[in-house]
Amino acid sequence: MIRISIDAMGGDHGPVVVVPALAKFLQRRPDARFILFGKQDLVQPELAKFPALAKSVELVHCDVAVAMDDKPSQALRHGRGKSSMWRAIEAVKLNQADVCISAGNTGALMAMARFCLRTMANIDRPAIAAIWPTSRSESIVLDVGASIGADAHQLVDFAILGGAMSRALFQIERPSIGLLNVGVEEVKGQEEVKEAGAMLRDTDLNSMTYHGFVEGDDIGKGTVDVVVTEGFSGNIALKTAEGTARQIGGYLRAAMSRTLMAKIGYVFARGAFKALAEKMDVRKINGGVFLGLNGIVVKSHGGTDDEGFAAAIDLGYDMVRNRLIDRIEADLQLFHARRHQHALSRAPRLGEEGEGEA
Amino acid sequence: MIRISIDAMGGDHGPVVVVPALAKFLQRRPDARFILFGKQDLVQPELAKFPALAKSVELVHCDVAVAMDDKPSQALRHGRGKSSMWRAIEAVKLNQADVCISAGNTGALMAMARFCLRTMANIDRPAIAAIWPTSRSESIVLDVGASIGADAHQLVDFAILGGAMSRALFQIERPSIGLLNVGVEEVKGQEEVKEAGAMLRDTDLNSMTYHGFVEGDDIGKGTVDVVVTEGFSGNIALKTAEGTARQIGGYLRAAMSRTLMAKIGYVFARGAFKALAEKMDVRKINGGVFLGLNGIVVKSHGGTDDEGFAAAIDLGYDMVRNRLIDRIEADLQLFHARRHQHALSRAPRLGEEGEGEA
Repeated sequence: MIRISIDAMGGDHGPVVVVPALAKFLQRRPDARFILFGKQDLVQPELAKFPALAKSVELVHCDVAVAMDDKPSQALRHGRGKSSMWRAIEAVKLNQADVCISAGNTGALMAMARFCLRTMANIDRPAIAAIWPTSRSESIVLDVGASIGADAHQLVDFAILGGAMSRALFQIERPSIGLLNVGVEEVKGQEEVKEAGAMLRDTDLNSMTYHGFVEGDDIGKGTVDVVVTEGFSGNIALKTAEGTARQIGGYLRAAMSRTLMAKIGYVFARGAFKALAEKMDVRKINGGVFLGLNGIVVKSHGGTDDEGFAAAIDLGYDMVRNRLIDRIEADLQLFHARRHQHALSRAPRLGEEGEGEA
Repeated sequence: MIRISIDAMGGDHGPVVVVPALAKFLQRRPDARFILFGKQDLVQPELAKFPALAKSVELVHCDVAVAMDDKPSQALRHGRGKSSMWRAIEAVKLNQADVCISAGNTGALMAMARFCLRTMANIDRPAIAAIWPTSRSESIVLDVGASIGADAHQLVDFAILGGAMSRALFQIERPSIGLLNVGVEEVKGQEEVKEAGAMLRDTDLNSMTYHGFVEGDDIGKGTVDVVVTEGFSGNIALKTAEGTARQIGGYLRAAMSRTLMAKIGYVFARGAFKALAEKMDVRKINGGVFLGLNGIVVKSHGGTDDEGFAAAIDLGYDMVRNRLIDRIEADLQLFHARRHQHALSRAPRLGEEGEGEA
């Protein structure tokens, strides 16, 4: 049984979208159990519309809801301990739930998740991982905005986190990892990216393959399973891709309604356009995953509908079922053991002969 | 008369693409004059195919050609003073040409341009500006990879350079300027972006309007006329958008050939698809512009065809005709005068009363 805690007040629409999403999801996965945190007078009427939910959903009343435009510091001040967002995260900490889903505002959710769950041992900073549809299949890109800038060690952490997620979510035995970089050689700067590359190359991990540097256009090609970058460029890449997709969608709609012939063509090709629209449907890949914390938190798009929110629940469910946290911990341990070994084997021998050869 | 120097050996195809591009361009702009730098035995046979070029094109033989995979330092070592790339840039310095166009490798071209032309007074670093098709029209994005990282002053320089280019190229009287940033508030880092924003807000320039921060998806929307960022994120944004456009193009082609109905629809809508393909044709907006140097250099895509190379020449031609360099110099002077005034007006009055009030 997988237990999922839900912030019912998050997102632009709150319980009106969240509750129908639970109903959708439970049809696919009847074994899931939900704890729903939110304002009773708003959530209960929605629940009443889906009597089948009663046996799988427990509602916990919370007075406070974090607003979509609350600053992280505000949200922490007013909402710590009592908001639906906080309580949903805390349920994971208290082992009442295996994963938390919220469509609330990203900054507040990350601040609360960090404060409540804390980062894992050996991890400096959490990252937000996005699932990116590619020409091949789907890749994971991180960090897409948890923090700005990252040193080499943090980038390597992101690689381990993303690699574990790729194995848990897509059952890729040995995912390939690429570091996002620019193609121009001999450009100064980005020493941290080069250093991270050297660390990943030197420390052989059975759980992943280090591919090398990748560029922006490699993400959509699906050149690697996991694209690692710091949060500023990751966020800009993600939003630029979303913007480009919308822009081309707009061009396409305009082109297909311009002439009578085009309109006739559209009627014939309607099935194809429907398939294309499904391919480009961002709802299906809805959900940023917070990685590196002692617990899994999935952030759904704030403006999504029930279909989209259900997809975010899918994501959380799959990661719990495939033991994401255990995988991350095992990989981190292995990595640090190997790094230690690597350092020993390269250290000048100062003690007895043979030391450091282990 | 506008005089254009061309590196005939640049790009994946060299003179086979460059020479037909000149012929195309001269049909549109018969008043242009070209100096072509390249290997005589390779360029002359191409020129012979277009007898009409003879009166507008002068060929200067160069023994050395910079290879597409030469590192910038290699290119400078072997090609300085004698390669077709260097000589084409130098023609601008020697006032034999008004603008230089090359499809050669970006790193080498930037290194040579910087070394030969030097940066303008009051400018720290050059930038590469890209023209970005948007849902509204076209915007300018810079820096897309001349250097990595930028402090607040350098970002402000980029704003001035991009603003001048927007006025020269699109005749926008007072272009709006946006600083690329991530939406998450209270995230640490990117102090330089915030500081650049404050400087642009404080220093009112008649030649541009400071809009504020923009995010990745604002680029394609055309929210502002000029998007300013440092070269790492700019390069990643540009390549990610190109990759996304190609990816969606692939989806569309696959969808339209999947079923018989789709194929029939395609036949009817062929005109619409052609219009869409033209809209998405990267050749038409081919050309990265090097800004901030004492002269204009346009970098064409290496793999482009004659149509694309001709578009890069268009770009150079338009910027010369609209006195880009004069505009940049005037804006820089005005900006620094205003900054000085602004600093004086805020400085504590230490001397005679009334000082600093001017």
